[in-house]
Amino acid sequence: MTASMNEIDTYAKQWIKEAGERIRSSFPNRLNIQSKSDPNDLVTNIDQETEQYFIEKIKGTYPEHKILGEEGYGDDVTRLNGVVWIIDPIDGTMNFIHQRRNFAISIGIYEDGIGKIGLIYDVVHDELYHAFKGEGVFLNGEELPKLETRTVSESIIGLNATWVTENRRLPPELLSPLVKQARGTRSYGSAALEMVYLASGRIDAYITPRLAPWDFAAGIIMIEELGGVATNLRGERLDLLNQSSVFVAKPGLHGEILKNYLKDGKW
Amino acid sequence: MTASMNEIDTYAKQWIKEAGERIRSSFPNRLNIQSKSDPNDLVTNIDQETEQYFIEKIKGTYPEHKILGEEGYGDDVTRLNGVVWIIDPIDGTMNFIHQRRNFAISIGIYEDGIGKIGLIYDVVHDELYHAFKGEGVFLNGEELPKLETRTVSESIIGLNATWVTENRRLPPELLSPLVKQARGTRSYGSAALEMVYLASGRIDAYITPRLAPWDFAAGIIMIEELGGVATNLRGERLDLLNQSSVFVAKPGLHGEILKNYLKDGKW
Repeated sequence: MTASMNEIDTYAKQWIKEAGERIRSSFPNRLNIQSKSDPNDLVTNIDQETEQYFIEKIKGTYPEHKILGEEGYGDDVTRLNGVVWIIDPIDGTMNFIHQRRNFAISIGIYEDGIGKIGLIYDVVHDELYHAFKGEGVFLNGEELPKLETRTVSESIIGLNATWVTENRRLPPELLSPLVKQARGTRSYGSAALEMVYLASGRIDAYITPRLAPWDFAAGIIMIEELGGVATNLRGERLDLLNQSSVFVAKPGLHGEILKNYLKDGKW
Repeated sequence: MTASMNEIDTYAKQWIKEAGERIRSSFPNRLNIQSKSDPNDLVTNIDQETEQYFIEKIKGTYPEHKILGEEGYGDDVTRLNGVVWIIDPIDGTMNFIHQRRNFAISIGIYEDGIGKIGLIYDVVHDELYHAFKGEGVFLNGEELPKLETRTVSESIIGLNATWVTENRRLPPELLSPLVKQARGTRSYGSAALEMVYLASGRIDAYITPRLAPWDFAAGIIMIEELGGVATNLRGERLDLLNQSSVFVAKPGLHGEILKNYLKDGKW
């Protein structure tokens, strides 16, 4: 089985780099942009074409694998048995449209519910983050060190201003003290990139009340492989088949924030 | 006088690239980090050495020019007569320390109080943003288009979560509606980079209640050259000799935010 995962890994890395090259080549062309559920939930032809590219490659090589993709061209996945690819073809579509940077391709590969391979490709910076369960996490082939703990007062937290103002997901006063007491907060607009920023130690925690499985499936494999902690905002295990809040952090810091700010989920 | 400014421009570009190369070369070395006024106001030996490098170059070539620098090795500048270089050797020191990216060198060159040359160098990405008054703004030599207006609902706003939670600078409820009504908010942790993000159209406005002149001296030259608007949070002209709030935005959008959210300064 390990040999097979190694083969899957080799293909996945090849396909994600090829998909990134296709996205870079598309930059001179005009985007076709549409809204999804709300006016700020955007999708482009490039999101759709990139997902279709992966589906064609995966189904052509591994017809028995299942695919859960953001744009819905994959399978109707209701169970995590067998090998499941969880794909966001462009994580950070708003950045992709407005900035042509600060977006990523995210692929998590699970086997019977266990995260085996995580790939996040920062296309514009040509930075490929790659986790293989039990073997470490690598940035363009260079191994990343284990995550070490840090106190809130020395931490940079990935947290968007939305979540400390009136919103439908959580009380705005819950995380305000964290904003005040942390060294700083940042917001980059791509969950996958915020998670590799944590994996590579550039931020110390990332908190967001609503993500879909394709936003976090790859990132949590990397963070857990490096000794970090990934849960929802109540400290519970993440659900890979449904939307969820996500709270990822360095070890130690996760417990400090969960206890002192997220009140052990009692809010 | 134009010839002379052209010569100054040539030197300034050469020196900022050389300073960036020195910073990149320092990456393998251990940083010496100290706190300034508060525990999160950090300075490193690289901030200090970079400012000293500029002072040596400028004073060696233009002994009559004055220098206002963040680290205090320049002159005690109390008036803007003559040529004044306003320098932040590393804007985004916290990012420099935690991330080794998302920081910039910022240099604004003023003549009798008028912004003539603005240079912001994103060292890690080797992106040099360059404004020359009356001749346009360039990113690595390629001219940036004029800024076009955009409504709040289609805008990405650079705004840190700090300013919508309890803080010493402004009422947290003032900008909460903007967070809710904008397409999105981002926070990158470097005023100079947020301003070149605006200049290059990646964000549409940037709002922050407390900066020093070296944080914004270069950026506002670029933004105004491209038709954007730069004021403080009350809509007043920026003061280059004192700390100030800063509100920069695309034309039209600046007026919309000033009127509907910043209440024309009446708060």
